[in-house]
Order: sequence, then C-alpha cells, then structure tokens
Amino acid sequence: MAKSVNWGILGCGKIAHKFAQDLMKVPDTQLVAVASRSKEKAKDFGRQYGVSNCYGSYEALVNDPTVNACYIATVHPFHKEITMLCLNHRKAVLCEKPMGMDQEEVKAMIQRAKEKDVFLMEGIWTRFIPAVGKMLGLIQSETLGDVRSVHADFGFLGDQDRSNRLFNKSLGGGALLDIGIYPLYLSLLVLGYPEDVEAAAQMTETGVDESCGMILRHRNGAVSSLHCTFMTDTQIEGWIHGSKGSIKLHSRFHHPNKVSIYRGGEIEQTYNIPYIGNGYYHEILHVNECIRLGLKESPKVMLNDSLNLVKMLDEVREKIGLVYE
Amino acid sequence: MAKSVNWGILGCGKIAHKFAQDLMKVPDTQLVAVASRSKEKAKDFGRQYGVSNCYGSYEALVNDPTVNACYIATVHPFHKEITMLCLNHRKAVLCEKPMGMDQEEVKAMIQRAKEKDVFLMEGIWTRFIPAVGKMLGLIQSETLGDVRSVHADFGFLGDQDRSNRLFNKSLGGGALLDIGIYPLYLSLLVLGYPEDVEAAAQMTETGVDESCGMILRHRNGAVSSLHCTFMTDTQIEGWIHGSKGSIKLHSRFHHPNKVSIYRGGEIEQTYNIPYIGNGYYHEILHVNECIRLGLKESPKVMLNDSLNLVKMLDEVREKIGLVYE
Repeated sequence: MAKSVNWGILGCGKIAHKFAQDLMKVPDTQLVAVASRSKEKAKDFGRQYGVSNCYGSYEALVNDPTVNACYIATVHPFHKEITMLCLNHRKAVLCEKPMGMDQEEVKAMIQRAKEKDVFLMEGIWTRFIPAVGKMLGLIQSETLGDVRSVHADFGFLGDQDRSNRLFNKSLGGGALLDIGIYPLYLSLLVLGYPEDVEAAAQMTETGVDESCGMILRHRNGAVSSLHCTFMTDTQIEGWIHGSKGSIKLHSRFHHPNKVSIYRGGEIEQTYNIPYIGNGYYHEILHVNECIRLGLKESPKVMLNDSLNLVKMLDEVREKIGLVYE
Repeated sequence: MAKSVNWGILGCGKIAHKFAQDLMKVPDTQLVAVASRSKEKAKDFGRQYGVSNCYGSYEALVNDPTVNACYIATVHPFHKEITMLCLNHRKAVLCEKPMGMDQEEVKAMIQRAKEKDVFLMEGIWTRFIPAVGKMLGLIQSETLGDVRSVHADFGFLGDQDRSNRLFNKSLGGGALLDIGIYPLYLSLLVLGYPEDVEAAAQMTETGVDESCGMILRHRNGAVSSLHCTFMTDTQIEGWIHGSKGSIKLHSRFHHPNKVSIYRGGEIEQTYNIPYIGNGYYHEILHVNECIRLGLKESPKVMLNDSLNLVKMLDEVREKIGLVYE
C-alpha cells in the first residue's frame, strides 16, 4: 500500500494558498496541518481548506506526528531556520525558492538533510510544468542542434510603494531573489553552470535591486541574456536558440502552457500543453512520489542544482552589490 | 534651384549594392562615380547602375570634380582613412557604421570635418526607417509613460567558416561591431548614454566575439538588455518597456515595417509602416536634404551621437577583451 503523504504548510501567504489549492487536486494526499506565527491567520487559512490542525507556531507543527511532509512558504529569510526545524524533526521538506539567502545557508540545509537522512527539495515548481518537460525533450532530441543562447525576461510593474515586501531588504526583497531566479534557473536547466556571470542592476533607496540584467557565458560557447524587473511589464518569454532552430516558452515562460518550435524566424509547430491548477499540482505529485519511494533527493531538482542556483544568485549579488544582513 | 547631389560610392561590397539600388529610387540625385581597389570590380559595379566614372583607387574618385557626396562602404578598418581622404577633398561624407574602429578614430574624423567645414554623418540608416520614427513619436507622446527597459537581440547563424570576413580580426570582424551596434544604437536613441556597461562574450580562436551580451544601466533608472551573435538565429526584435505599456519593433527591429503597442501583455495597436527599397532610401533622402541646406551635420544622427555610440562600443570591447591591432 502506498505510503500516505500528509502535508503541513508553514507560512500562510499568497503562495501557500496557491499550493493548498493545488494540493486539494492531488489524489491520495492530505493537507493535515498549517502553521503561522499568528494563530488567527493559521485558523483562517485552515478553515478554507478543511484543515483541523492549525498552529500559531512552526514548532507546534513539527511536533505534530500526523505530518510527514512540510511545505515552507514563508518569506525567504526564514527558509533556512524553518527548514532546519522540520529536518530536525525528520519531516520531508519542500522549501519554496530561493531555498536560502546564500550558498552558506543552502549548504547547511543540504548537510542537515543528509545527516538526518530526510527528503529535501527546493520548490522549483517550474521544473514540473509539463510544457517545460516538453522543451527538455525537444532539446534532447536534437530539434535545435546545439543550444547557443537562452533569453528570458521576467518583468512586471508592481506596486511601487517602497514599504511593500518586494522592496524590503529585511524580508529578502528585490527582483533578483523574487523573480530573477526564474530566468537564471532556465539557463541552469538548459545550459548548466556558467563559466562567468556579468550583471548590472538599478538599486532602490531601500538597498535592493528593482531591475537586474544578467549575461552568462557558458563553457560550450553559449550565452544567456536574462533580465528581471519590478519596474515594467516585459514579455516574460523564454527563448532557447540553437544551431538548427529555436524554442519559445510562451508567456509566462516559467509556467507556460504553450511551447513553439521556430525555424528561420517562422513557427514550425506549437504544442499546447496545459498545466493543472496553479501549476504546483505537478510538483506536489512528484514530491509525493519521491516520498513514497523513500527517496531523500529528487532526481529532477537535485540538491546540487539548488546549490548551483544559489551560487549563481550569489555571483550576481556580488556584481550588483546586493547585500542582505 | 536645388543643389544637385552627385554621389560617389567607395567600396563595392554587398552594402554598396543595397545603397546603390536605393539611390536609383531617389529623385534629383545621381550616382556619378564608383571606386574600388580593383578597377575591374569598380567597372562591374558601375555597369549595373549606369555609372560612367569607375575608378581603381579611392584617390582617383576624390579627385573627380563631379562628385560632391561620398558613401564609404568599405570594411570598418578602412573607414577612417578613406573618410579623411574625402574630407580633405571637401566631399560630403556618409560613412557606413561603425564610423571608426574606436573613439580616437571617430574623434579625429569629426575634427577633420569641422576643420574642413564639410558634412559628415555615420550611416546609421536605421534612424531614418519610418517605423523607427513612429516609435520615437510614440515615446515622446508619453504612450509608454517612463521608459524602464530596452531589450533587443540581433543574432543570425552565419557561415561558420572561420576564414569568413565576419571572423577576421584584421578586417574588423566580430559580432559587436557588425550587428551589436544595432541594439546598442537603439538603447542610445531611446535612453541616451548609459551610466555603466557590463558585457560578456564568447570569443573565437581568431580573437573576435562570436556572441556578446550587454547590460546597460541608465541614470534614469532604466536597464537595457542586449545581445548579438553569429552563432544562432534569434528573434531580432526590439522592445521598449515603459511604466504604462510597451512598444515592439517587429523583426528585424533595426529596419522594421511594423510597430506595435502592447498593454498588459496584449497588442493594443499595430502600425504597418513599410520602408522603401532596402531601407537606405530614407537615409539618402535625409543626407541629400542636409547637403542641399548646406548643413555640416545631420540634426538626426549628430556627430556627438556617433561619438557616444563608439564610446559604448569601446566600453563593451574593454569588458570582453576585444582588441583590434
């Protein structure tokens, strides 16, 4: 009989709701507990999804024996501390991206997961979007020839109020960690760890990046040209250009429901591949499978991938002078 | 009566043909002479366009009293020398881009034009494409609000034979000077001279850049994300994103015949504005007008614009270690 996967969600923000909504669609799994620093908030959240165990502290949730998988949905600066707490209680952890604020944090988290022999994965949900899988299949089948460039931009004109979390350094604000991670991950997924990274950013008076451009040079001769911003709506498209053709990940490229092949500037074929729910459904399915199989690491988003991703973030941060205390 | 503009073309390559074809369409102007280092080549060229004065040296052409405007269509490393020759003979000069190999060359050329009181303009033909003018009008009319980012890419999968001029350092090869100048010029035109420039390139074994990514940070808070490559076909689109909307310059963005306004990711309006001939027609019309008016500098592509453009090229070259002897 399949092992039951009983989820607890830690943090009750926007992303926790999206995740919970998708969790409801996944068979043979339950949302059994939810925690927030505010018990009221946890209760409100739990009520919406029929969860009985609603806690006013993360410590209470990790002590709940009915929970065996935890989803960390807090703001970035608390990811490490809460993940450590879960791992110490031998709960499998899916930690929202970015896994930690820097590579030191991520290394410590990976180390702890290994010591405790517990499953840990970064919540790079985009990897499990069916159309992204299709893109990888097309690249592997040599549809593009050699990949020579990756272009991706993620920009939206957000609330420009500087008191917003997005601009708050102590809450891990800035475009890079919030949305720049998506174009960077696309580059990592398609081209691997780069040979070098150049970046330039516009910083706010609150000390975070409101726009950041990145150029990655790869060992195999390819170049990635990436951009993220809170200051304007961009196309949010992903392009992979090869020696024989191109792939477009339609907007929004990190969870596309359409992938097109281009040759000579013209569309050759478009695949319509919808995702389910908010797109987290596919990630949840995968994590459940990993847990049921007793894996301690996902074969699709490996711990080393997360380490490489945060190393790229650290390199960009160094170039643009983005420092979190 | 309007002053007659009698053109001479120096250099008989691909671009000289495109220019000559368009010149035939312009009223009240003649192609009266053509020169190449090879007299045979000049004669072949002249025959195609009904030119009687075909010279086997640039010196011979500048001594032809019937010529009053010279178009320099040679490879980049000879632009300065031949432009100086023309200016010394008080011929008006339209010099193909890039005007010189570096800012020292361009400064010297501008200096000479001023000393000799002769018209000089860099052949940034894209500035005169009607759809590019439309784009500027839309930006000036606040259609986009504040401009916050410029994205442009220019990539094509060229002949990969390393003996090709594109990879030949002594002929000014490399993607940056050849095609990277177009996204850089778009950024300069829309956002002005940047505050700083970051770049990364893949260099060939022949010592030139085959791909180059650039990030420009501007004083007004905007970021340009630009890319050029000989290694893959890219979209060759230009995007200007603002606080209230976006403009797309359709492929190929440097001489588009379509400009679209986007709001919230959807096309609001598309303007179909064809250009005439190969697109050089409009530039020729403008230069003729400048010459007839007795101007020594174009009000649309000013000498200082050319100096700023080559300064940007020099900055990128420094970052990527691209050195021409």
